[in-house]
Amino acid sequence: MTDEELMALALQQARTSLDGGGVPVGAVLAAGGAVIAAGHNERVQHGDPVAHGEISALRNAGRRASYLDTTLYTTLSPCQMCTGAILLFQIPRVVVGEARTFEGDLGFLRANGVEVVLLDHQGCVAAMEEFQQRYPDVWSEDIGGR
Amino acid sequence: MTDEELMALALQQARTSLDGGGVPVGAVLAAGGAVIAAGHNERVQHGDPVAHGEISALRNAGRRASYLDTTLYTTLSPCQMCTGAILLFQIPRVVVGEARTFEGDLGFLRANGVEVVLLDHQGCVAAMEEFQQRYPDVWSEDIGGR
Repeated sequence: MTDEELMALALQQARTSLDGGGVPVGAVLAAGGAVIAAGHNERVQHGDPVAHGEISALRNAGRRASYLDTTLYTTLSPCQMCTGAILLFQIPRVVVGEARTFEGDLGFLRANGVEVVLLDHQGCVAAMEEFQQRYPDVWSEDIGGR
Repeated sequence: MTDEELMALALQQARTSLDGGGVPVGAVLAAGGAVIAAGHNERVQHGDPVAHGEISALRNAGRRASYLDTTLYTTLSPCQMCTGAILLFQIPRVVVGEARTFEGDLGFLRANGVEVVLLDHQGCVAAMEEFQQRYPDVWSEDIGGR
């Protein structure tokens, strides 16, 4: 599968979360173009503040001795926790849907040797804008009150 | 409860994890000296690579609008993911059991405005040394293959 196809799966996860009243961030962990695991933010659905999209995908992937062959797809630019998870597990490549509705710090990832591809995907922007307008308090909570 | 009493609870969590064959890192989230939630690493127990001690405690605490009144107690110096979680949720104070068996980057936390107290607790060191000697591969996996 291509980057665009894998991002479409991540966006499907985000949309599933939004349909459930949750934060629409989805993620897919893949290797060699094949899906290892997918996940989405579960703050609302499971009352779990650490279940960002990327964290859920990594959790769903289970234990791995190495992530050096993986790419992480995420619909939204990673927060500090998810940035730290990428560095901890030495994930070498991250494909980001968009960094308009939340900037994150893609420069920090790049400075730490991670290859970052920013798609600027309009569908990812649209899902987040819909959510931020409908549930501004939940969004603020998810991103640490900023 | 004092810092030492709350660290004793975190160490109890770590010991529970070690007794179950897991990574002995425990954590407690507290406010005003009272426990909000506790947790321990669950990589082995639940096959969950993101369930570091700090992440488990934050998950068990559930949703909070703000963490500005909280202190996070962790038996081991935080990894990059847990460091990011502390910054994301703007936890203002972190009490660390020890930074001998894993150094982490307490300077990075301090540079970002977090008050860090390092106890250099011998019980925390002993639990990690026992684990690292018994299960070196699991430890390497938990900390990203380093």
